[in-house]
Parts: sequence; C-alpha cells; structure tokens
Amino acid sequence: MPKIRVGVLGATGAVGQRFAQLLAHHPYFDLTVLAASDRSAGKSYREAANWILTEPMPAHLAEMTVQEMSTNLSCELVFSALPTNFAKEWEHQFAAAGYGVFSNAGVHRMDSDVPLVLPEVNPDHLGLLKQQRAGRGWSRGFIVTNSNCTAMPMVMALAPLMPFGPQAVIATSLQALSGAGYPGVPSLDAIDNVVPFIAESEEVKMNTESNKMLGRLNGQGVDPAGIKISAHCNRVPVSDGHLVTVSVSFRDKPSLGDIVEAWQTWQPLPQQLQLPSAPQPPLVVRAESNRPQPRLDRDAGGGMATTIGRLRPCEVLDVRFVCLAHNTIRGAAGGSVLNAELMAAQGMLEAFKAEASHVPA
Amino acid sequence: MPKIRVGVLGATGAVGQRFAQLLAHHPYFDLTVLAASDRSAGKSYREAANWILTEPMPAHLAEMTVQEMSTNLSCELVFSALPTNFAKEWEHQFAAAGYGVFSNAGVHRMDSDVPLVLPEVNPDHLGLLKQQRAGRGWSRGFIVTNSNCTAMPMVMALAPLMPFGPQAVIATSLQALSGAGYPGVPSLDAIDNVVPFIAESEEVKMNTESNKMLGRLNGQGVDPAGIKISAHCNRVPVSDGHLVTVSVSFRDKPSLGDIVEAWQTWQPLPQQLQLPSAPQPPLVVRAESNRPQPRLDRDAGGGMATTIGRLRPCEVLDVRFVCLAHNTIRGAAGGSVLNAELMAAQGMLEAFKAEASHVPA
Amino acid sequence: MPKIRVGVLGATGAVGQRFAQLLAHHPYFDLTVLAASDRSAGKSYREAANWILTEPMPAHLAEMTVQEMSTNLSCELVFSALPTNFAKEWEHQFAAAGYGVFSNAGVHRMDSDVPLVLPEVNPDHLGLLKQQRAGRGWSRGFIVTNSNCTAMPMVMALAPLMPFGPQAVIATSLQALSGAGYPGVPSLDAIDNVVPFIAESEEVKMNTESNKMLGRLNGQGVDPAGIKISAHCNRVPVSDGHLVTVSVSFRDKPSLGDIVEAWQTWQPLPQQLQLPSAPQPPLVVRAESNRPQPRLDRDAGGGMATTIGRLRPCEVLDVRFVCLAHNTIRGAAGGSVLNAELMAAQGMLEAFKAEASHVPA
Amino acid sequence: MPKIRVGVLGATGAVGQRFAQLLAHHPYFDLTVLAASDRSAGKSYREAANWILTEPMPAHLAEMTVQEMSTNLSCELVFSALPTNFAKEWEHQFAAAGYGVFSNAGVHRMDSDVPLVLPEVNPDHLGLLKQQRAGRGWSRGFIVTNSNCTAMPMVMALAPLMPFGPQAVIATSLQALSGAGYPGVPSLDAIDNVVPFIAESEEVKMNTESNKMLGRLNGQGVDPAGIKISAHCNRVPVSDGHLVTVSVSFRDKPSLGDIVEAWQTWQPLPQQLQLPSAPQPPLVVRAESNRPQPRLDRDAGGGMATTIGRLRPCEVLDVRFVCLAHNTIRGAAGGSVLNAELMAAQGMLEAFKAEASHVPA
Repeated sequence: MPKIRVGVLGATGAVGQRFAQLLAHHPYFDLTVLAASDRSAGKSYREAANWILTEPMPAHLAEMTVQEMSTNLSCELVFSALPTNFAKEWEHQFAAAGYGVFSNAGVHRMDSDVPLVLPEVNPDHLGLLKQQRAGRGWSRGFIVTNSNCTAMPMVMALAPLMPFGPQAVIATSLQALSGAGYPGVPSLDAIDNVVPFIAESEEVKMNTESNKMLGRLNGQGVDPAGIKISAHCNRVPVSDGHLVTVSVSFRDKPSLGDIVEAWQTWQPLPQQLQLPSAPQPPLVVRAESNRPQPRLDRDAGGGMATTIGRLRPCEVLDVRFVCLAHNTIRGAAGGSVLNAELMAAQGMLEAFKAEASHVPA
Repeated sequence: MPKIRVGVLGATGAVGQRFAQLLAHHPYFDLTVLAASDRSAGKSYREAANWILTEPMPAHLAEMTVQEMSTNLSCELVFSALPTNFAKEWEHQFAAAGYGVFSNAGVHRMDSDVPLVLPEVNPDHLGLLKQQRAGRGWSRGFIVTNSNCTAMPMVMALAPLMPFGPQAVIATSLQALSGAGYPGVPSLDAIDNVVPFIAESEEVKMNTESNKMLGRLNGQGVDPAGIKISAHCNRVPVSDGHLVTVSVSFRDKPSLGDIVEAWQTWQPLPQQLQLPSAPQPPLVVRAESNRPQPRLDRDAGGGMATTIGRLRPCEVLDVRFVCLAHNTIRGAAGGSVLNAELMAAQGMLEAFKAEASHVPA
Repeated sequence: MPKIRVGVLGATGAVGQRFAQLLAHHPYFDLTVLAASDRSAGKSYREAANWILTEPMPAHLAEMTVQEMSTNLSCELVFSALPTNFAKEWEHQFAAAGYGVFSNAGVHRMDSDVPLVLPEVNPDHLGLLKQQRAGRGWSRGFIVTNSNCTAMPMVMALAPLMPFGPQAVIATSLQALSGAGYPGVPSLDAIDNVVPFIAESEEVKMNTESNKMLGRLNGQGVDPAGIKISAHCNRVPVSDGHLVTVSVSFRDKPSLGDIVEAWQTWQPLPQQLQLPSAPQPPLVVRAESNRPQPRLDRDAGGGMATTIGRLRPCEVLDVRFVCLAHNTIRGAAGGSVLNAELMAAQGMLEAFKAEASHVPA
Repeated sequence: MPKIRVGVLGATGAVGQRFAQLLAHHPYFDLTVLAASDRSAGKSYREAANWILTEPMPAHLAEMTVQEMSTNLSCELVFSALPTNFAKEWEHQFAAAGYGVFSNAGVHRMDSDVPLVLPEVNPDHLGLLKQQRAGRGWSRGFIVTNSNCTAMPMVMALAPLMPFGPQAVIATSLQALSGAGYPGVPSLDAIDNVVPFIAESEEVKMNTESNKMLGRLNGQGVDPAGIKISAHCNRVPVSDGHLVTVSVSFRDKPSLGDIVEAWQTWQPLPQQLQLPSAPQPPLVVRAESNRPQPRLDRDAGGGMATTIGRLRPCEVLDVRFVCLAHNTIRGAAGGSVLNAELMAAQGMLEAFKAEASHVPA
C-alpha cells in the first residue's frame, strides 16, 4: 500500500517532536517534511530542535533539513503543532491549498464545522467535513482537531458511560509540566510547588470541548452533550501525564459494577479496526487503591491508553474516580495521529494517496 | 505570669519536632519534657531526633535528655505527636493521671465527649470538657484534639460562610509529603509523580471531622453541621503545604462579593484575644489568578494563616475556590498550641499553673 | 538452542524487578524461578512485588508464585539481588549446591577468587573461576559479581584509556534515588535537596572495585590497576541514572583527540560477540556542552550504554569529563545479565544447559 | 546615626528581590529607590515584580513606584542586580555620576582596579578604590563587586587555610536553580535531572575570581593567589543553596585537626566589627557524615553562613570536604550588602551620609 506523504508543522517544539517521533516509522504515513519558524528553517533537524524526549531523535530525521512555513511543502497531510497565533495564520491556508490538516492547536476546535475527534469517542463527527468543505469552498483540504490534553482522559472515561446519562461533573486536574511546552514552566515555579492555574481558557475548554466530543452529530453540526462540567486545573511537578479526579452524577444511577463493566467491555471503532496506534484495551482499569500514578501509568498502551482507578461512591454526586493519560502522546500528537489513521482506515484519505498526490500549489 | 510546664510526647518525629520548635520560646508555656519511645529515651534530643526542619534545633533543647513514656513526667500539659497506636495506649492514661492532653492524633477526634477544635471556628466546643471529665471521672486531666491537616484549610474557609448555609462540598486535596511523617513517602513514589491515595480513612475524615468542627454544641455533644462533603485526596511532591480545591453550594446563594467580604472581615476569638500564635489576618485572600501556591503561601502568618484564592462560580455547585495551609504548623502542632493558648487565655488552665502544679502521680 | 533455566533471588526488590524484566523474554535464559523472603513466598509475583518500574510487569511473571529461599530451586543459574546480609548467607550456599551465581551484591566483589566483571572491560577475569572452584571445592557452581553502580560508568570510560596510563582520578558522583532501593531514600530527604553521603563504604568501593576491574589477571588473582582514585559520592533527586564528573591524569599525556578516538573506536568483546544485551556502541560520546543528562541519556542503548561528554582539559590533573549510566540497568541487573551472556557465548555454561540440568539437591 | 539612602538596580528580578528584602529594614541604609527596565518603570513594585521569595514582599516596598534607569535617582548608593548587558551599560555611568555601586554582576569583577570582595576574606582589597577613583577620574563614586555565587562557599572555606599554602583544588559544584534567575532553567530540564553545565564562563570564574579574592593586594592591584583550581559545574533540582565538593592539596600538609581548628577559630573582620549581616560564626562546621545539605543548611546564619562538612583525607590531593552557602543571599545580594556594611563601619562611606547627600546630577 502506498504511504501518504506527511509533514509536521512546528516540528521543533515539544509537541512537534512527539509528532516526529510517532510518525518516524509509521505504516500508513511517510514523514517527508519538517517545517518550523524562520529561525529554524534551513538547519538540520538535529541542529534546529532542542530534543527533549527521553528516547533519542530518530536517526533519519536528524539529518532532514527543516523547511520554512509555506503551502508549498512536498506532502499531502500536515500535522500541526503550531502555537495559537501561528495556527490561526496557517492552518486555514494549508487546508485551502488542498492539504489535510490534523491539528493539535485549540483555535479551530470549537468551529461549528470542524470535527473535534477522539476516535474511540466520536468517530462519526468526521461527517462534519462534508459541510466544512462545502461551506469553506475546499475541494480536498480539511481541518480535523484533536482533544485538549486535560479533557481527554475524562472524556475517554465518560464515553462508555454515556448510556447512563451523565448529568454533572466536577473535575480537578493535576497537569504535567510538558503540557506547557518548552521552555514552558520556570523551574522555580515547579520545584516543591503546585500552581492552581493553567490559563484563563483551560477550565472553560474542559467544559465546552468535552461536551462537543460527547455530543451528537446532527445535520448542521454537533449538539453538545449537555453535561454540566466544572473544572479546577492545576500544574504539578510531574514531567508527563495529566491526572484528573472526577465526581459525576448520572440520570440512571448505575452501580459501581455497571460502570466497571462498561469500561472493561468497551471496544470502540479504533480497536475494532486495529488501527496501528489504537491501544488495546483503550481503558486500563486498575483495582489498586493507589493508582493511576503518572510515573507508573502514563506509558500504558505506548502512551495511548487511559488508566482509570479509585472508583467509589461520591457523597455529593454519584460516583468518583481518577483517570490519567499521557498528555503529549495521547493528549496531543498521538491523538492526531490516531485521527489520521482512522480516516485512512475508513477510506477518507484516498484523494491524498501517492498516485493522487502532487505538490499542492 | 508563671508559665505552665509542658511536655511533648513523641518528640522525635516530624510533628514532635514542630511542637518542640513552636514551644521552645513560648510566652505561656515552659517546655520541660521531651518524651519518646524507648529507643530514644536516655539520649540527648540532638542525638535522638533526626531533625528535619529547615530552621535549626533550638540550642537549649538539643541538650535535654529524652525521657521514656510514663505518666510521671515533670509537667502539667502534654502535646501529643504520638502515632495512632501509641496515642491509643497513652493519651487516655495521661488525662486520667491529671495531665491536660492536646493531641494531634486522630484516635479521639470523633469521641463524642472530646472537643475537636479549631480556635477560630469552634472555641465553644471546649465546653465538652465538662462532660468529658464527668463521664470519665477525671478531676483535672482532659483531652482536646486538633484538626486533621487536610480538613483544616477547608474548614477555615467555610467557617465564615456558615451563615450562607453551605450544603454540599466536593474537594480535591494536593497534600504535601511531610503529612506522612518521616521517613514517610519513599522518594521513588514522590519524584515526577502523584499518588491519588493517602489512607483509607483520609477522605472519610474530611467529611466527618469537618462536620464536627462546623457543628453546633448542644447539651449532649456536637450536632454535625450536616454538609455533604466528598473528598479526593492526593499526595504531590511538595515538602510542606496542603492545597485543596473546593466546589461548594449554599442555601442562600451568596454573591462572590458576599463571600470575599465574609472572609476579609472575619475576626474570630483568637484574633480578638490576640493569642500569641493567632495569625492576623486568619485568612489571607489573594486576588492573583495563580495563588495560593505551597512554596509562596505556606509560611503566611508564620505558617498559621490560611490562604485562599481563585474564587469563581462553579458550573455544578455554586462557587469554587482554592485554599492552602501549612500542614505541620497550622494543620498539626501549631493547631494544638493555639488550642492551648485559647484555653489559657480563657482561664481554663488555672489548675495547671505553677503554684498549683505537682508532678502528677 | 535449549535455554538455561534461571531464577532471581530477592525478586521483589528494586533490582530484583529489573532482573525479572530483563530476563522475562531472553534468548538464552528461561526465567523459571522468582525467589524472595518468607514474607513474599507463596504469593503471586503480582501480589508480592510492589512493582516500581515504569514499564508494566511482564504478564506471564505476574502469575508466577514467589518461592521461598532454598537451594532446591528448579533452575541452574541464579541472579542475586539479595541485600548484603542475605547475600552473605545465601550466595555461597547456592554456589556450593551447584548453581551458577551472578550477583549484584557487594559482599563477594573483593574476594580474591571472585571475578568482578564488566564484560567490555575485563572479560578475562572470568579465568578466576578455575581457582574459585578448586579452592572452594565446587564442581559446577560459581560466583561472578557485577560492578558497583557508581564505579561502573567511570570504569567504562577509563577502560579504553588504559593504554595511556591513567595515574590519578578525582571523581564526584551525583547518584540517583533508585540506587538506594525501595523504600530507600525518604522523600523529605530528596525533595529540593542533595545529600553528600551514600554509605561509609561507597567512596572506598569507587577506589578498590575500580582498580580490581581495571587490573590484570595473574596466576593467583588480580593485580589492581594502581590508579589513585578519590571519590565524593552524593545523592541527588533523580529517579535513575548515576552521573560522575571525572578529573584524571595520565602517564602518557594523550591529547583530547586521542581520548575521543579511543572512546569512539572501542569495540570490546561483548560487542564483537554481539551479545543480546551488549549496547552498540558501548560508549556514546556527546559533543554538546550540556550532556550527558540523566533524563535524556540514561536509556541510551536500552539502558546498557555509557554516555560521556564535556571532555576538556583539567587545570590540576590532565583532563576532565562527565559520564553517566543507568544505575539499575547497566549498573546492576543488566550488568549481571551481560556477564551471564558473556559466559554463555564463550561456552562456559555448557554444564548448565538443559540436557545437563537437574534440580540440584 | 543618619541612614544612607540606597537604591536597587534591576529590582524586579530574582537577585533584585533579595536586595529589596535584605535592605527593607536595614540599620545603616534607607531603601528609597527601586529601579528597573522601562517595562516595569511607573508601576508599583507589587505590580512590577513577580515576587518569587517565600517570605512575603515587605509591605512598604509594595507600594513604591518602580523608577526607570537613570543617574538621577534619589539615593547615594546603588546595589546592582543588573544582568550582564545592562551592567555593562549602566554601572560605570552610576559610578561616574558619583554613586557608590555595589554590584552582583560579573562584568567588572576582574577589572584590575575593581575590588572583588568577600568581607571575611579580603576586606583590604577595598584599598583598590583609591586607584580606581584616580585612574577613572571619579571623585566620590566607585564600583565594588561581590563574589560569584559558586566560588563563594569554596573561597570562604579556603580563606582560613591560606597559611597552610593550598596548591591545587578540584571542585565539583551542585548548583541551585535560583542561580539562573527567573524564569531561568525550564522545569523540563530540571525535573528528575541534572545538567552538567552552567555557562561557558562559570568554570573559568571558579578559578580566576577565587584566585583574585584569595590574592594579595600590592601597589598596582591584586596578585592572584596562584592556586590551580579546576571546577566541574552542574545544575541540580534544588531551589536555593550551592553545594561544592572540594579536594585540595597543601604545601604544609596540615592535619585534619589543624584544618578544623582553623575553621572553628576563624573570626575575621566582619565578625569582629559585628556587622549587621555578618553571620556568627562565619563557618558552621558539621560533624555529621551527611551534611551539609541544601534544604537543612542553606539558611544557617540567616543565609549568610557557609556550612562545611565531610572533612576527610583525599587519595589524590590531601584532603576533601563539602561546603555550601545560600546562593542568592550570601552568594549574591547578601554579599554586596555585607560589603556595604563593611565600608560603612570603616568610615569609607562618610561622603554619602545624609548631611553630605544630594541628588547626584
């Protein structure tokens, strides 16, 4: 099967490095372009990127030349790790120029015609692309976004519980340092400390983006799920792995056993399709009283699984539990890679296949 | 004014060291006894205690000889930093032998005739001592307990809001390592990690002990406040300072302004009495979006103040905020010292004053 | 090729877990026995071991029953992760009963007839086993020890430089928490802190064990290399990875270029034999001014490589550099596994092969 | 006694905050000016400074207006916490305009006519000011610099040993994060990690600046002490407190007892003069095998003392030991404050006293 040529936008940053790592040896995609800001363009990737991942930089990428941002890149799909301001400027241009854009940026997530997709949760939301192309006048290009890294583990835990009718959620996140990128959080703010604040928008996203992902596709767009979600977001001195404590109430008052069964028997589409990056199982349910822990559980399923533990009754809502996922793998780059795999496996990327490909102009 | 002679039980441990530090130069009390387990007895305090506080051991205590546990100690009051099993064995004996016992242990906190006191919150609960002495047949001795270190900042924040009728609380704690004592948490569990579990009883205490402290004294005991409290307790890699995120609903739906005013104008009894360890103000309300932080706020008011920030509406309950206090000062040793100061200032320790004192036998 | 049955002694501890992980899927060895103290015996490995590695426990080991210590185990070789006192009691017994013992313990390292082996450095020291068996009256069993985890990276860096005649070394180690096992270092000693002390013997070992490994086998034993080595050993808040700063003087005054060339062209026996656990290259020489770093370099070569950087002149001795290795992989369990691979590849374990095997009695 | 009016240059940064804290309530000096870059000028200090010290900002400073940099400030002395490029631009101008400049910057430390002073070590070097004023044509102004924060604890430990003739030193530093200022080291470089590199110049400074401070004043300038000093400088995840391991050889081969006696009996000029910030004793010699530790010892003497421990023979040089000091107090702001106190107590600041003062133009 011919591979589709892909590029990474913002390849030198923290999430860009994850994209590069996850795409370096991918069965569906051929990573042919690393693009970044003018400061990096023209250098080898080895020189341009201050590599911060614990696994070494893939050798064949190290010698690739970083390209400047333009809609003239030799690839069909782009994975965007661009910061907000650059994402605003570029993502739309790439889609208009005929590229498929898989974005980790927040700027388009809440656009009514942009799918915000967790493949296990709402693969059908890709149906929005028809309206997106029609409305924006794009023939081939598109924008698909992945989840916010903090909403992600909570939405994965809630998705199999949707039949029970979740009504209200109070969540407190303990978020890893890598969520702020690099250089990100100053070490003097991180050592021996907690900061009870991420950004003005973080707690809002926990509500709006979660409700969009858990919502229902209709003719016009997505009807949000209508769950009241209140979040307290905190930064803790952990390198990777966002942990979220969750209290939730349900319309149907499931038992703890009902909930565990729903989690453990959940086999959504990516697992059925055996997508290369789909973790099996998608949810790791731990029985120990002291799990999940970031250091021990963030790499479950190659960093793509969500680990859940401490299910117990809640004195105020109905039940409470703790969930955790790797924020720069599943919560960022890996999420977009899985989105691309889902589209590929469903035949939605045929127009981008090698025989069809061209350097878009 | 003659000082009352006091001793510390369990003086070599983490909380015992805090008691020693806080009592070393106290205007009301004369620290004459450091008692600990057989392993330490007979050694100088310098030798016996592996001093872990950042301030050096008070010089005059370093040469004191640690005494073995017995109800024959040359003091009138004892501050107990005993671990649970020893507290069970000894605290009752000390009170029966005529000592006033100020305990940091959890074993007697929920006894119906034992005051569980935060001096700013429920000083009147000391009225239980009458029943305690009568029921247990003690003429002079008594047991008064201080708050659990995690419930403490939350109860301090809720106390001035009681007139608004708090109904339900969901709280998530981010607790410091020193809360587990020494050696306590292994460093391999703490580095680059969070553990979403403290002990089976911790989340229960957040509910029961908070409701007792916020409850109303009646003829027989204390009517709990009747607030539904659900807690998620977590250990984070912070040396000192427990932070708690709180969502709360109220019967009377106060505005955010009402709440801030209640906090900022609160001048409870210890502050009115100008007790030596009473922080002024008792609550430090921060306007910055990223406070309180353990490293920056735990030492407010000499470690005796509670810092509150991030007051904002809650999508599920009514409001949410973040509070923080120093867990081994205000949340442990300092809490008991303030209890003792409160009793002294109210004339409740006259029987223990020097002229009345004896080596209890 | 039939695999040799092997067991792990002290399988539940930190180093024992590493042995289990490294031996779980080994091409030469079949892990059939997990043995530990009475407290663990009879339980499943899942229950008995408080698994602290970030990679999950191998599934087929989780259900194995932990056996009590005895010389009646169904295997031919044992890898010992026993603490000192148990190593003293048991290792000799196992060897006498016909087992091959690969030990990570320090107790026998300096015995004159016991090989202390880093396979890249002194594979010929295995020749001592002839004398060991003769002197101790053992027909099949033996004891081979691996390096101390702190001496290890320094000895790996010095070995290719032996032709230049190293004369004196001053080394300062920054050692990881996992070097102290679990629970090991209390978190209150580790957070925001450095402890300039490991154990009375640690700095001595840096001298004596390094000189033994770098020494020359003669008829009677090993002539130590005669390098003066002075070490300052420190504990730093790092999970894994011992870093050592080294200043060294040489008889032959090599240039920096000579030294780099010696490191980069070094292809010792394990690499020539392509042993399964031998890293390729054995030494990773980094040109960046800020490497090696524990977080970025400890996993080089699957945790089996040594990373060296910052080579520059020394104002007092001749040159200085920084080296680093993973202390529980290459510096402990992985070192012994590589020793066993070396013996297997050289035909020194024929007596233990399946056809020859028996349950020793 | 009239206080001298002083200002802080670069008042909003990490070292500037320490200056503000140490000068807020000073018996000799009246802090009347907080100056900083254009970005901060015009704001209140509370708004302009992102206060990172654990003790709260002094209340009366919080409302002071930060002034822009100019040589028209209403004070006589300035304490410079300027970064290198600004120090180059401004310090000379201030001195030329008649201000006394006490600088923490590195730019002028090695100027032959600029005193680089540790008051306990080389108070006589202030004699250079005569040449400085003559050579530069300044009538009242001057520049006096304090020590590099890493050289400082080592120089303090070596100073009383100068009679024994130290010949060569190999030192390895474990430096705190605050040494890099704020935001400084990214948290992803600090967590679970060590970085064996500070800056190209750091290891050079350990040699040249130490030799200048320990050198002898002659007619023309300072003869360096002529000690060969080789340093390995490392960043460790510690908030405050630089620890240095030291091996040293001596001409006169003092015994360990001689060395301890020299340290313990050392009573240099600042202690004799009882300067307000002079710690008593200047050197805290610890007998425990595991001290000094940053968390436990950095605040000795109010952060102004140097703690020494682990004195023992060195196999390569003569002896080795470990020393530690608070890098932003004694190693930076506090060092300059003590320099100023020394000059004041010796009558070298009479020209700046209130009766003589003016707003320099």
